[in-house]
Amino acid sequence: MDTPARRSRRDVSPSPELAIGVDIGGTNIRAGVVAADGTVIDTVHAPTPHSVASLELALEGAIKQLIADHAVSAVGLAVAGFLSKDKTTVQFAPHLPWRQARVGVELSQRLGVPVVLEHDANAAGWAEFRFGAAMGGENVVTLAIGTGIGAALVIDGEIYRGSFGVAPELGHLQVVPNGRSCPCGKRGCWERYCSGTGLIDSAIELLAANPRMSTPLARELRQDPESVSGRRVMVAAQEGDPLGEATIAYFARWLGVGLALVSDVYDPDLIVLGGGVGSAAPLFLDEAREHYIAMLTGAGYRPLARIRRAQMGEDAATIGAADIARTTLAAERSH
Amino acid sequence: MDTPARRSRRDVSPSPELAIGVDIGGTNIRAGVVAADGTVIDTVHAPTPHSVASLELALEGAIKQLIADHAVSAVGLAVAGFLSKDKTTVQFAPHLPWRQARVGVELSQRLGVPVVLEHDANAAGWAEFRFGAAMGGENVVTLAIGTGIGAALVIDGEIYRGSFGVAPELGHLQVVPNGRSCPCGKRGCWERYCSGTGLIDSAIELLAANPRMSTPLARELRQDPESVSGRRVMVAAQEGDPLGEATIAYFARWLGVGLALVSDVYDPDLIVLGGGVGSAAPLFLDEAREHYIAMLTGAGYRPLARIRRAQMGEDAATIGAADIARTTLAAERSH
Repeated sequence: MDTPARRSRRDVSPSPELAIGVDIGGTNIRAGVVAADGTVIDTVHAPTPHSVASLELALEGAIKQLIADHAVSAVGLAVAGFLSKDKTTVQFAPHLPWRQARVGVELSQRLGVPVVLEHDANAAGWAEFRFGAAMGGENVVTLAIGTGIGAALVIDGEIYRGSFGVAPELGHLQVVPNGRSCPCGKRGCWERYCSGTGLIDSAIELLAANPRMSTPLARELRQDPESVSGRRVMVAAQEGDPLGEATIAYFARWLGVGLALVSDVYDPDLIVLGGGVGSAAPLFLDEAREHYIAMLTGAGYRPLARIRRAQMGEDAATIGAADIARTTLAAERSH
Repeated sequence: MDTPARRSRRDVSPSPELAIGVDIGGTNIRAGVVAADGTVIDTVHAPTPHSVASLELALEGAIKQLIADHAVSAVGLAVAGFLSKDKTTVQFAPHLPWRQARVGVELSQRLGVPVVLEHDANAAGWAEFRFGAAMGGENVVTLAIGTGIGAALVIDGEIYRGSFGVAPELGHLQVVPNGRSCPCGKRGCWERYCSGTGLIDSAIELLAANPRMSTPLARELRQDPESVSGRRVMVAAQEGDPLGEATIAYFARWLGVGLALVSDVYDPDLIVLGGGVGSAAPLFLDEAREHYIAMLTGAGYRPLARIRRAQMGEDAATIGAADIARTTLAAERSH
C-alpha cells in the first residue's frame, strides 16, 4: 500500500496544469501526462491485458509511473464502450474485460487522484475541438475511422452524450443498399465499408469482380489474403496500384454517402475525420466530398459542412481524456 | 394602409398572453390564437394559394381576422421548408411558392406585429415538449409521420437547429436494404415506407406478392388503386382486413428499424410519434417497439427510449409556432 505516500506528495504539489490521460485500447494502453495546452510531456505504453485484475494492475502501474515524475491533478481514462452517464462505471466494452465495473471509483481510491472515464471517441473528438482541427466549430462531428467508426458530437462547446450517455453510434447507419451483412444483424452498415477491415473486404470484392487484375496488391491478396491490412491497401493506392486506387475510390463513395447522412441528422458546420484510416484523408477526401454533396438531402439549398482531417494524431484520445478530467475536476471544485 | 391603426391598438393593449400561430401547409393554412398554456381560443382556416402574392394576401387576411378580435403580442409561422438560421427568410419550401423570401420581415411590417418563422416539424415538436407528450423529456425526438417524415429534436429544453438551421432530416435515412427507389437518389429511404404513401405502396406490393388475397382492401386496390389512401389502409387494418393488417405490420417493422437508428444517432430518452400516420400509433406501436429493441446497436447494454404517441393533434404546429413567437419576443424584450 503506497497510496498514502502518493497522496501526501499530491497534497504538497498538485499541479492544476497537468493531468494524465490513458487511452485504453483493445491492444495497447497509451498513458500520457498532458499539459493544459494539450502538449504531451511524458508517456508510458503497455500491452492491454485480458483479465480485469491484470488490466487494472497494468493501468495502476502505468499511471503510478507517470505520477512518480509529475504532479498531476486528475486522470482521465478513454474507454471504447458504454459508460454510465455519471462516468464512473464501464457497462460494456466489446474489446475489454470490464462488465458493469466501477472503474473510476476503484482506481481513484488506489491512486489517490480523481479518475474520470470518457468514451474514447468523445475523448478524441474533444481533443480536436480544444486543440486541433475542430477548434472554433459550433456543432462538430468527429469520426474515428479505424477498426470501426467511432463518433463524437460537440454541440456549442460541449460533448453531447445523449440521455443515457451512449455516444453517437454511427457505424451501423445503413449506407450501402443490400450491402455486406453485419454482426449487428443489418446489411450495408457504414463501418462494414469505411474501416480498415472494410478496405480489405472491398479490395477482395473488387478483385473477384475483375479477376484478370495483376497488380502488386492483387497478387498479395491471391497469395495470402490474411497478410493484407487496411494500411497496406492505403499504401498500395498511394503507390498507384490500380486495385488499391479502385478500393480507395469505392471507400470514398460510401464515406461520402455516410457523411451526407451525418449532415442530415446533425447539420454540423464541421466534420473531422480521424483514426487510422481517416487520417489518410488526402487519399480520398476530394472524392468523398463529391459524393457527400451529391447525396445530401436538399443539396443546393443549404450550406455545406466543412470536412477536415484530424490533427491530433494517435494521442488524440489520451489528450482529450486528460483535458476532460482536468476540466471536470476544475468545474467540481468551483461549485 | 391600416397598419397604424393596428399598431396603435397593439400599443394600447398587447397581451403577452396571446400569440397567433399559423401552420402553412401545402394544402391548407391553419391560423389560431393561442394562449400561454397552449389552448387554442380562436381559429381561421383557408386553402393555401399557389402564388407568392396570393399566399401572402391570404396569410395577411387570416391573421388580421384574428387580430381584429384578439390583442396578440406576436405571430409565429410554421413552414415546411429550409429557413435561414435567423428565421426571417424561407430559403426553399417544396410545397410552397416561396424561394429566398424574407417572409417574416415583410409580413411583420404589414401587420404591425412581430412575425417569427419556424420549421413546421420544430413547431409541432415544441408544442409536444411544452404542452404534450414530450413534457419533461431531456432529449426528445418528435416525428411527424404523414406525407413524409418531419423531425424535431429538443435538447435540454431547446430546439436543436444545427449549424445552418436545417431541422433534422430523417426521412432519407436508408432503412430498408435494397428498398424502393426515392426521388432523392437513394434506395430504401425511411419515408418511402413510413408515411401515408408508403402505406399505399406497401399494400400494393403485399397484394402483388399474394395475388389470391380477396379482402375488401385488396378488391379496392385492384379496382382503383388511386382511390386508396394511407388513411384507408389504416382503417382497413383497424377493421381486421388481413391485407390492411399485414401492411401495418410491415410498416411497424420499418418504423422500428428506423427508430433504432434514431436512438443510435441521438440517444434520446423519449421519442414522440405524431402526424396523420404517427397518431394511429396504437395500431403499430407494440410491434414497432419490438423491432426497435431488436435493431438497436448495443441493445441490452443501454436503457431504451420511451416511445409515445403525440398528444397535440392537428393544431400542434399552430400551437408550437405561437409559443415560439411569444417566447422569442419575450427573450428579445428582456435583453
